[in-house]
This record gives sequence, structure tokens and C-alpha cells, in this order.
Amino acid sequence: MIYFDNSATTKPYEEVVDSFVKVSTEYFGNPSSLHNIGGKAEQLLTQARSQVARLLNVKDSEIYFTSGGTESNNLAIKGTALMYRGRGRHIISTTIEHPSVTEAINQLEQLGFEVTFVPVDSDGRVDAKEIEKAIRHDTILVSVMHINNEVGTIQPIKEIGTMLKEYPKILFHVDHVQGAGKVPINFYDCGIDLCTISGHKFHGLKGTGALFIRDGIRISPLLSGGNQELNTRSGTENVAGIVAMAKALRLTIQKRETGIHQMEVIKDILRDELEKIDGVKVHTPKEGSAPYILNFSVRGFRAEVFVHALEEQDIYVSTTSACSSKKKSPSKTLIAMGLPEEEANSAIRISLSFENTMEEAVYAADKIKQTIKQLGEVMN
Amino acid sequence: MIYFDNSATTKPYEEVVDSFVKVSTEYFGNPSSLHNIGGKAEQLLTQARSQVARLLNVKDSEIYFTSGGTESNNLAIKGTALMYRGRGRHIISTTIEHPSVTEAINQLEQLGFEVTFVPVDSDGRVDAKEIEKAIRHDTILVSVMHINNEVGTIQPIKEIGTMLKEYPKILFHVDHVQGAGKVPINFYDCGIDLCTISGHKFHGLKGTGALFIRDGIRISPLLSGGNQELNTRSGTENVAGIVAMAKALRLTIQKRETGIHQMEVIKDILRDELEKIDGVKVHTPKEGSAPYILNFSVRGFRAEVFVHALEEQDIYVSTTSACSSKKKSPSKTLIAMGLPEEEANSAIRISLSFENTMEEAVYAADKIKQTIKQLGEVMN
Ligand SMILES: Cc1ncc(COP(=O)(O)O)c(C=O)c1O
Ligand SMILES: Cc1ncc(COP(=O)(O)O)c(C=O)c1O
Repeated sequence: MIYFDNSATTKPYEEVVDSFVKVSTEYFGNPSSLHNIGGKAEQLLTQARSQVARLLNVKDSEIYFTSGGTESNNLAIKGTALMYRGRGRHIISTTIEHPSVTEAINQLEQLGFEVTFVPVDSDGRVDAKEIEKAIRHDTILVSVMHINNEVGTIQPIKEIGTMLKEYPKILFHVDHVQGAGKVPINFYDCGIDLCTISGHKFHGLKGTGALFIRDGIRISPLLSGGNQELNTRSGTENVAGIVAMAKALRLTIQKRETGIHQMEVIKDILRDELEKIDGVKVHTPKEGSAPYILNFSVRGFRAEVFVHALEEQDIYVSTTSACSSKKKSPSKTLIAMGLPEEEANSAIRISLSFENTMEEAVYAADKIKQTIKQLGEVMN
Repeated sequence: MIYFDNSATTKPYEEVVDSFVKVSTEYFGNPSSLHNIGGKAEQLLTQARSQVARLLNVKDSEIYFTSGGTESNNLAIKGTALMYRGRGRHIISTTIEHPSVTEAINQLEQLGFEVTFVPVDSDGRVDAKEIEKAIRHDTILVSVMHINNEVGTIQPIKEIGTMLKEYPKILFHVDHVQGAGKVPINFYDCGIDLCTISGHKFHGLKGTGALFIRDGIRISPLLSGGNQELNTRSGTENVAGIVAMAKALRLTIQKRETGIHQMEVIKDILRDELEKIDGVKVHTPKEGSAPYILNFSVRGFRAEVFVHALEEQDIYVSTTSACSSKKKSPSKTLIAMGLPEEEANSAIRISLSFENTMEEAVYAADKIKQTIKQLGEVMN
């Protein structure tokens, strides 16, 4: 099996699953319980928080655990809107965000908020200047993703954050789901106030995530109740999942040292091979994109057909993002980049992990070539 | 170890953890992915949904998976409020709800909703007639828990639901977290529109839960995004956790047949022994309470002291609910029942699982007796 769909989800590391089992079996207590069975669970929670904070170079008190990227994005956006609605009701984002950002904002629009979705250039990149132009006196939040999940374009987070320092009343949220552990950003240097990560995108478990909330910032909870996570996210903590996520982040960052270079090599092989094929167009920009996402179209084929044809050869890729794949709507990001709908409809995403090898890349490129040929023959 | 804190959280069944491991390792795909690795995960998700629906005697389409009881309660309450705010802005609940209900409602109050918290009697039970009296022309939701987590009182869900059938515009939400799998209720017969369960309360894993939403009812999502769970709860599904929860529910219901009787016997032993002790007062009503929760006060001792004293003998009980235990505020339910603060401050909760034995009960009762004696001597 060649699994090239790591932006949809990753296989959890074995050690991560082991940690989960150990914690949920031996330390099953409720961290809020007074007795020691709860106390031990609480200790693990505290340690996991420290570990995640250290790995992200932030303070322990700035890490809030959630059920995943979607919850963190919703919490950041709706929590800010609810808390600061007295200050203003305008939100700025971009045309290429993940639905968990876009839809959260759209829901706020129905509640009387206003939103500007700033467009991107043909590389799928937003310009900090365009963000600045969109700022109004009543803007309370700017939300921009770090790495686009469909084409891999890296957004100018630092420029946007630096520009926003001139506007201290505007909070800056970054969806770091596709970058965490692989393309580091310094949250403080980038002026980030709120930052989302999701465990299952770096070989942790589904249903785990975190939101960084810079010290001094308060947002309204989305899940209120027993006051867990400093009152910002209630609910009995998924301690085993949280410990597993901390471990997955550590392992991912460890592997980055050597792994990221290998990813670059693999991506280059794939790009070179794909660009040689007649009818293939690569959409991921050569410069300023993540070393693990490669998006391309094969002229004349709907992406689903191609995904299934590769699947028969035990190669797993995707059409656009996982959560849009069944709606059969064209890739939102590619449309925002100005591509014609037909091209967007035939877009394939390859997304790598540190587990992928050069051999897999060569083999897959070859199979892609053959598949295009065969499908072409069938259609003629 | 005698673990008598099962209302705070339970130890997951071994088979439940095994299922989690198998699914997260072998079926790690994203259910939204088009290819077969996603397809297999989706299939498991569909099966788990059917299983949970069957076990709860409802339709597959009525089960929505969430990250736990807190999320389900928040989703039910805020989702209803947002969806039906045009119809009215009044919500009815009781004075003994879990904070994930109370705080969700309190947050809505800040947004312009109005709320009536109906009081309970000295057994901690609300009267359906009192609920009816609180109904206004603009009432959109009644939220009442099934089994109180602090004293175990069973609420008259069927009476309330039957009464509410006269008011078809009012939705009825039930927090079934403490009852699920152990004290069954028929959601349809009881006229329930929305019902919360939480995996870790019946030997499933933390971070898993579900909300029953009766067919035909639509509520606003709290987590919007990739449109998972029929658009009502977005976020990549925690497939392994969901499968594990379905299994835990099945095992719990299987064990109920014989287990529930044993629980009753254990609870009776404990009650009888405790009532013999000078200075002990049992708060859990004899009739109409769950067979696994027993709440009592020991005159003259703060509950924390007592919890720790028992802990030294490897017996784990709790002060009120887990999530309030560290705030050191008196039990909300006991106060609502009209107990003086001093008694509420010395309240201890024993909560059983099917794993507890008669021997444990006899041993624990004996230790409780001794502990009271010893602590009394220390204090004199
Ligand atoms: C950029 C981005 N943001 C947010 C999410 C949502 O994260 P989760 O799947 O943990 O809900 C995803 C993936 O689904 C993503 O790719
Ligand atoms: C009655 C009741 N409702 C809701 C909850 C919250 O569920 P969870 O711990 O899954 O968030 C609990 C337990 O904490 C509870 O006892």
C-alpha cells in the first residue's frame, strides 16, 4: 500500500497507540476527581500540556485541549466573536480556508456579523497588504490558515502578523492544522493570538486537538460546563488522547530533522515526473509550498475516476480535501486561484508523511503515467 | 482497590480498548475520503451508528456522534436556541442539572434568552406540574436530566414528556448521561426530542458521546465545517472512539440483565450499614433512585477529609460531582433539596459499576464505620 493521503488523515504511530492504551487502562480516573486515581490522570494531563507547550515554544497556560481542528477553529472564531461583539462585528478571512473556518464565519454572519473573504493570487497565496486593506474600524478578528490543505501553499503568516501589530485590537487566528510539527512557525514572532492544531494530522488520534490562546486573551467557551481547560473548554478531558497527541507531536518534530529533506526529494521526484506527462498540470507552486502536498490535474478525467483507478493499484490519493470529496464540488482553493472549473474538477492531491519513501514516489509516478495512458485509451 | 466513583468516570472495558486499538491501527482512514481506506472507516462508522441506534431503540439517522456529554448537552441547548430563536427565547430547566446544561443556558441568558430553573423537592425530584407552570408562550426548550449525578434521583421524564405533548412547539432535551445502558428509557414513549449520552460513563472512552436528535428536528451546529454527522456536527470523526463506545454500550446493556440486581443488593447493604452509623445521613431517596448512586453525609467532617481518609484504605469515593469537587463549593443538588450548607459540605457520593462486588460493599461499609470513629477520635 502506498498511502499518499496524509493531509486527510495519518496512520497513528504505534507508540502513540501504545500510550493511549496505557493511559486509558492504567490511568482512567477523571482528572477532576479529588482522589489519587483522578490525581494521576490530572498529572498526566499537566505533563502533556507542558510537553505540547514546549514543543510549540509557548507557555503551558496557553494550550487548551479540544476534540480536534474543527472544534479549535470554531472555538477560536465563535469564541472571539462572542467575547468581543461589543467592540465590533467585522471579521476578515480568505477565500481558501478550511470549511471549519469558513462555515463558522458564515454562521456568525447569520447572527449579524460581517465578513470579508480576501482573495488569493494564482499561487493560492493571500497578500498581507490585501488583508490590511480589508481592515475596518470594527474589525475584531483576522483568520488565515498557515498551509493550505488542498494545494500546500504557505501563507505569509509572519507578514500578516507583523502588519496586524499596528492594530492591537484585532485578534489574529491561524489554522496551523496542516503545518504543525512539520513546518514550524513561532507563534509569538508571528503575532499570533489563537492557533489551531489537530492530532490526527501528525500521527496522533482522531478526536484530539488543541487551541493556543495567547496569555491575556479571553474568549467565550463553545462548550461550557464543568470548567475544565481554565473554563474555556468544558467536558471530561480525553486524557489518553491528549497524552497520545503530545507524543505524536514530539515524534513528528523529532522525525522532521531528517524527514523533511526526504519529503522535499520525494515531492521533487513526483513533480518532475508528473510535469513530463502530457495533459498533467501541477497546481502547487514551486516556491513557498509545503514539502508534502502536491496538487495536479489530469486533463480530461474527473478526479474520482482517477482516484479509483490508482486505488486499484493500491495507491491512495485524494480529490481536493477529504471533507469536500463526496460533495463532488470542485476544489474551492483551485477555483479561488482562478482555475477553470474543469481543471478544478480533475484535481488530484498527493500528500506525504515521513513514512513515505523514494521508491514509493518512483513507483507511484510510473503508475500514474500508465493509468493516464490506459484511461485515455479506454476513453478513446 | 475498591473503585466507587463510577459516576465520575468508569474504567473502560478491556474489549473496548481492544476495539479502539484495532480500528485506529487497521482502519485509520478518514471516513470522508473517496478511496477504500476511507470507505472502510466509513463503514465502521455506519455500523457503530446502527448499533448505538438499535441499543437505544431509535433510528440510525437520529444518532449524532460528539466528543462527550458536555458537547452533546451544549449542542442540544445552544443548537435549539439558535435554530428557534425566532419562535421564542424562553428555556426551562431545573435547579439540579449538570453544569454543562446550566452553564450552556446561562451563556444563552447573556445573549438575551430567558430561563426558568424549576426547583426540586426534598428528594431532589422535579414535578412535571411545576415544569408545566413555568411554560410561557415563548418557551422553546425544556431540559431535564434523567438521573441526577449527585444523589441518583430519577426524574419523572415520562410524565414531563407526556405533559409536553400538549405543547408541540417546545423541544424536550434529556441529559441521559448517568442513565444510559443501566436505567433504560424509551425515547419515543417519553416524548424526548434530544437526548445526551457519554461513552466514558459506561466503560467506553473519554472524549466520546452522542446526541439523539429525533427525526424531523433540526438544530444549529455548534461545530460547523466539513459537514460530517449530517451537517450537525463537523470534524473528522473519531471512528475508533465511536466504535469503542458502541461496544461499551452493548456490553453494558448485556451486563444489565444480571448486574442491575446485584447493584441493588450492594446499594442496600451499603445503605443499611451506613444508616446504622451514628452521625450518618443518607440523602439518596429510597424510592425512585438509580441502583448505583448513594449519597450521604457524615456529620462533622468536611467531605474532602473523608475522601482522603478512605483513599488511604484504597477505597475511592467522591465529594459531589467530579467537576465541582475542586471548587469546594457545596453540592448544588443537596442545596436545591433544601439541605443546610454544612450537611451539603460533608456529602460523600458512592457510585457503583457492574464490576463492584458484595464483598467490596461489606468491606467498604466496615471501613467507613472505622474511619468515622478514628476521625472522630482525632478531632476530640
Ligand atoms: C486546514 C485544516 N483545518 C482544519 C481541519 C479540521 O481538523 P479536524 O479534522 O481535526 O476536525 C483540517 C482537516 O480536516 C484541515 O486540513
Ligand atoms: C449528568 C451529567 N451530564 C453531563 C456530563 C458531562 O459528560 P462528559 O464528561 O462526557 O463531558 C456528566 C459527567 O461529567 C454528567 O454526570
